[in-house]
Amino acid sequence: MTGVSGAMTDAGGMGITVPAVILVKPQLAENIGMAARAMKNCGLKEMRLVAPEQSPVSETALRASSNSEDILLNARVYATTREALADLDTVYAATARPRHQVKEVFTAEYAATHLPARRRTGFMFGCERTGLENEDISLADAIIEVPLNPEHCSLNLAQAVLIIGYEYYKTTIAPEGRRFITNGGEVASKEKLFKFLDALTGRIRQSPRLKDEEHTRSLLINVSNIFTRANITEQELNSLYGIVNILSDGKKDGK
Amino acid sequence: MTGVSGAMTDAGGMGITVPAVILVKPQLAENIGMAARAMKNCGLKEMRLVAPEQSPVSETALRASSNSEDILLNARVYATTREALADLDTVYAATARPRHQVKEVFTAEYAATHLPARRRTGFMFGCERTGLENEDISLADAIIEVPLNPEHCSLNLAQAVLIIGYEYYKTTIAPEGRRFITNGGEVASKEKLFKFLDALTGRIRQSPRLKDEEHTRSLLINVSNIFTRANITEQELNSLYGIVNILSDGKKDGK
Repeated sequence: MTGVSGAMTDAGGMGITVPAVILVKPQLAENIGMAARAMKNCGLKEMRLVAPEQSPVSETALRASSNSEDILLNARVYATTREALADLDTVYAATARPRHQVKEVFTAEYAATHLPARRRTGFMFGCERTGLENEDISLADAIIEVPLNPEHCSLNLAQAVLIIGYEYYKTTIAPEGRRFITNGGEVASKEKLFKFLDALTGRIRQSPRLKDEEHTRSLLINVSNIFTRANITEQELNSLYGIVNILSDGKKDGK
Repeated sequence: MTGVSGAMTDAGGMGITVPAVILVKPQLAENIGMAARAMKNCGLKEMRLVAPEQSPVSETALRASSNSEDILLNARVYATTREALADLDTVYAATARPRHQVKEVFTAEYAATHLPARRRTGFMFGCERTGLENEDISLADAIIEVPLNPEHCSLNLAQAVLIIGYEYYKTTIAPEGRRFITNGGEVASKEKLFKFLDALTGRIRQSPRLKDEEHTRSLLINVSNIFTRANITEQELNSLYGIVNILSDGKKDGK
């Protein structure tokens, strides 16, 4: 669909290629593994490592990846940042403190929602101790900053991959902001709900506690509103019938 | 501003109170600490723990919190979920697999951008091993799902807190999607840029390599476009003058 060759596939049919993740000089195998896990969470597939201090397929990395071994097994290792970026078209550098740079800075959301179509892109992350060096950042098209509490904005490596990956993943899907789940059941039809309300009303009207018709009407309107608002399923309606019967039985016995 | 009493403060002046974070039966002190760190990243302040297996102020938790000890020191411990939620008005339950529930499900983004004003809200998270139990979920107003790769959507506790907190934090600020940083310098005025272009043009025109006026004009338009597009700062302009001089010196000497 996109005409882009190579391992990267099309995401969301918009001509956006799946970005590569480049970790520059990562220090800890556990973080490499957790970064792979975060990538898997977010539909990212291609990991590139520049001069890692630990192997991506060490036991520690594989264990930390939590079933994302495929990403680690396919990870490519490069000697220099330039080599790792050479076949990409657009690279964004993730850094919380872009010092001494003249460059555009994107929020994670802006970067993810403005990935250029039909270009091979990458998100680049620095090492745990110091982040990306200025020389690495100077090779990137723009900087990504994750907007966080400025007094406490440090993320570990895998968390940074996760948030930027999460913003990318959101662009590949269109989740409904809200939906209603029903435990496999169906929301009861109005007819069934009204039948229950009628039954309930019948029981209520038998009560000696009702003051007058005005009071009764107000009570029944409240009851109608509560149960109509609640999107009751057929299964729940059965529970409600059961409860009304239980309460009514008590009344029969007690008063 | 909001008339809400208690410890929670107003966020972003919209009458939205800062949500509490409720961790139900967390198992590992390290995760309690990392959740506190994620909360601090995202401007969340109030941690509530339901029957935690480890103390929030254990050495492990404090170390994992990475300078978020204040959140752990102020964390309140409750025996039951009901007690932990009792003084809240609206509670969202974070769970990846909302089984056997009849309830609304919000994406993290929807939940964060639709927090009710002037109500005390909370985000509730389950334990590492099993997540929230159905009884806990039934106490929540709605469910929050983080949209992630459905084949690999498991997040650890602190990561779930981080992503939902991140979506909350974004609603409290209005970051510019893109901005241009200049290493403290100023982007050169057009006058200064044109002066440099004139100087460069003068040097270029001395070259015996120029073919004809059409070729020269095209070359100079390209040069003008490149340098105008690049938002060059005054400091960078000095670097460019230096480079032109270096190259021109070479020409003088060599050819």
